[in-house]
Amino acid sequence: MNKTREVDLNCDLGESFGAYQLGNDEAILPYISSVNIACGFHAGDPTVMKKTVHLALQHGIAIGAHPGLPDLVGFGRRALAISPEEAYDMVVYQVGALAGFVKAAGATLHHVKPHGALYNMAAVNPWLAQAIAEAVYHTHPEVILYGLANSAFIKAGKEVGLLVASEVFADRTYQPDGTLIPRRHPQALITDEKEAISQVLQMVKTNSVKTLTGNFIPIQADTVCIHGDGPHAVAFAQKIKKALLQENIGIRASGKSS
Amino acid sequence: MNKTREVDLNCDLGESFGAYQLGNDEAILPYISSVNIACGFHAGDPTVMKKTVHLALQHGIAIGAHPGLPDLVGFGRRALAISPEEAYDMVVYQVGALAGFVKAAGATLHHVKPHGALYNMAAVNPWLAQAIAEAVYHTHPEVILYGLANSAFIKAGKEVGLLVASEVFADRTYQPDGTLIPRRHPQALITDEKEAISQVLQMVKTNSVKTLTGNFIPIQADTVCIHGDGPHAVAFAQKIKKALLQENIGIRASGKSS
Amino acid sequence: MNKTREVDLNCDLGESFGAYQLGNDEAILPYISSVNIACGFHAGDPTVMKKTVHLALQHGIAIGAHPGLPDLVGFGRRALAISPEEAYDMVVYQVGALAGFVKAAGATLHHVKPHGALYNMAAVNPWLAQAIAEAVYHTHPEVILYGLANSAFIKAGKEVGLLVASEVFADRTYQPDGTLIPRRHPQALITDEKEAISQVLQMVKTNSVKTLTGNFIPIQADTVCIHGDGPHAVAFAQKIKKALLQENIGIRASGKSS
Amino acid sequence: MNKTREVDLNCDLGESFGAYQLGNDEAILPYISSVNIACGFHAGDPTVMKKTVHLALQHGIAIGAHPGLPDLVGFGRRALAISPEEAYDMVVYQVGALAGFVKAAGATLHHVKPHGALYNMAAVNPWLAQAIAEAVYHTHPEVILYGLANSAFIKAGKEVGLLVASEVFADRTYQPDGTLIPRRHPQALITDEKEAISQVLQMVKTNSVKTLTGNFIPIQADTVCIHGDGPHAVAFAQKIKKALLQENIGIRASGKSS
Repeated sequence: MNKTREVDLNCDLGESFGAYQLGNDEAILPYISSVNIACGFHAGDPTVMKKTVHLALQHGIAIGAHPGLPDLVGFGRRALAISPEEAYDMVVYQVGALAGFVKAAGATLHHVKPHGALYNMAAVNPWLAQAIAEAVYHTHPEVILYGLANSAFIKAGKEVGLLVASEVFADRTYQPDGTLIPRRHPQALITDEKEAISQVLQMVKTNSVKTLTGNFIPIQADTVCIHGDGPHAVAFAQKIKKALLQENIGIRASGKSS
Repeated sequence: MNKTREVDLNCDLGESFGAYQLGNDEAILPYISSVNIACGFHAGDPTVMKKTVHLALQHGIAIGAHPGLPDLVGFGRRALAISPEEAYDMVVYQVGALAGFVKAAGATLHHVKPHGALYNMAAVNPWLAQAIAEAVYHTHPEVILYGLANSAFIKAGKEVGLLVASEVFADRTYQPDGTLIPRRHPQALITDEKEAISQVLQMVKTNSVKTLTGNFIPIQADTVCIHGDGPHAVAFAQKIKKALLQENIGIRASGKSS
Repeated sequence: MNKTREVDLNCDLGESFGAYQLGNDEAILPYISSVNIACGFHAGDPTVMKKTVHLALQHGIAIGAHPGLPDLVGFGRRALAISPEEAYDMVVYQVGALAGFVKAAGATLHHVKPHGALYNMAAVNPWLAQAIAEAVYHTHPEVILYGLANSAFIKAGKEVGLLVASEVFADRTYQPDGTLIPRRHPQALITDEKEAISQVLQMVKTNSVKTLTGNFIPIQADTVCIHGDGPHAVAFAQKIKKALLQENIGIRASGKSS
Repeated sequence: MNKTREVDLNCDLGESFGAYQLGNDEAILPYISSVNIACGFHAGDPTVMKKTVHLALQHGIAIGAHPGLPDLVGFGRRALAISPEEAYDMVVYQVGALAGFVKAAGATLHHVKPHGALYNMAAVNPWLAQAIAEAVYHTHPEVILYGLANSAFIKAGKEVGLLVASEVFADRTYQPDGTLIPRRHPQALITDEKEAISQVLQMVKTNSVKTLTGNFIPIQADTVCIHGDGPHAVAFAQKIKKALLQENIGIRASGKSS
């Protein structure tokens, strides 16, 4: 019996670049348990990566690599027709680069979570999913693959032999097949904070989520994506952490022993 | 007594990028003992890096990372006024990325040699030299730092605790202080092949080199830089290898036991 | 009555980048009547652009801008999910940049032809097609838009008020709707040179092409795409020019008065 | 007789990039008379460029191109050892790109001012200065070249036949030769706002400035650089505009007739 439920709260960090600041990295850290650090392709640069690794270590937060598409101006959010081989190669490259900073800091890489369009493409394209999972497995077989719950990516991660963490979203609505309603859909986002927190509690406590069509479908909720930017991001992170703790749900990086 | 003299012949490889082919990577491999693989900043891309690692392994050649300045259009040859911290960060990043491909291939990183303007700046700027050496030491303390013989970089490598290999050039002329005559100087290049080979034999056998002013100065010749591109590159590599073997000088990657 | 048939032979040029050489720009110029010069996003750099403009002028060839997706490593060949606004902006930017070199050389911009995936997306997506056509019309209303024959792009060009030139391919096969068979299809390419030349003559003389299914469909053949790279590119350009001249078909840039 | 003194207040705008916001472009516009718009090499992207052109037009502000070094991560502030030819080419490219957006908006390019390290290098290197001035003259002979007062760049601009505007700084101190004290110098910056405004009034009214060594030297003050970012930028712009108007000094883009 799982007497103490637990969940991971993860957040994308290290998205600044050169002279450009993005996000409230320091402010969000007290409310999360793992970070996904941008690796220079869609955001981040070597100096930002190093500083973000150090920042995460200071807060005792689990460190993950957050590889993305090579599209800085599009922030890695625009789908790019890459081959599985190209996906493999760009993930090996970026995870290796981030792992360098982690090693230099005397720390350990905890997980890998693809970013933006790479994340979304890996969720539905089994060949890309497998290629990315293999890139992680061939370089860091001990880390956890974070991916969209119910997706081809989670399936691929398990198949190559990686530990996986199924990610859910507080502020996104779900399709009957367990994947996300696309952002362009008018009801894609849950803008009411209470509703968003309620969805998270529902998912963590019951392993199910209510879809837009009203029925409940099973969902594995190992880690919740917390947004780090936006005017209300920190306040919302604080609220969701508080709500989880009130329900006796521990907040801990996926796969970390308590 | 060093009954068998040895020297390493190293060559920059993996300088292709996307649709762009550069160099004769496959043709040069039979004549060298170690390769420096571009890491995507001045040349190379993730797919090229992976393929070049595999190519080197097929030939049993020692693999090194070849980090450069973030200047693809300038091929990393234009000095950029970076801070030591930026140098540290870009070396950790690039070496980490290449190390990812090396690890995925089940191999071991053997050395790091900075490229182009980064190499030249590190040769004369002790703060940059130290920063780069520390970047390597903090991530791969076991690898060998390749740098210009008699330079601040070799000094910095030793000081941080790394093994170093002093690099010499067959086709470049030397200043009285043991550093290279700048390329813009009319006598910077040795264009006569016999003279170039003769200079290499002189350096390897006597640990000295004749400067432009005619006198001999001491120089440590652990590794000789072999060019991989240009119409005569492969033929010259073949000749220099033959000349060394005729003098009973073994060709072996620096630091590798025979 | 069009007593003298004419057709334009266009070729992508200026695809070198920094230290990277691509194509046989000088060798192909005697056989073509217009060039599409890469603008730095998928290939080309400012120095290459300037030199290619001068090279085209020396040969009296009509100069076109060849804007592409911001994907140097993918050579602009990978579809990227850009918005029409982004397409508009990247075309204004790139055409403006190339127009700068044209103006500095005292010449006139003759046409604009999108590259690679941008070309293909504009051929089928009417919103992208319109955005690109408007970008050209708002900055250079006098130039000719080159696009795939029978495509949404040609339609959009006409609608915004531009002169258009319908492009056909010697070495590609056609679908019943007049668009190209995708490259991944096993019969996408015509590898037999005689067959390729025969297809061009058929298109120019009869304004029709035989599709893979065997029937003939109407096609406007204002300009033929000639490849500049590949081992046989120059020889093939020579052959196709000779074949056209033998049939008394003049070779002249679209829209240029004789 | 110049019965009404005038000066231009210029500000760097359009420095955002993709998802990254930088500066308070809208807030600063009421207090300035000309803008320098980043062209995508050190900052800015095509979409930001278009929007900034429109923003400037809405406020009736003169539009200038602000070309920089190809160093996005370093924001164009790090010196790069480019050749004069490379400088020429990158300026033609960037000015052309910005001119495209200006033309599409039905407006006219008013001036060109290099950015950051390119500005500083052009101020002291006569070959770079000449190359940049020629790039502007060959493409836009009618625009005004903005450059550091008393610099090689102003001299080069005059020599190639361009109108020039000598730029002065409110918050920077001057060397006896009329150039700026480098930023690394402890007294490089004037942090007291009153002192900064006082220096501007002194320069505009008397065409002289007090150097760090205490003596006054002649300086031409056609345009004052106003910073657009930083917490106090807008307030300071407001103050300097007020102080100038109180002294009956008109604020008008250089070269624009009243």
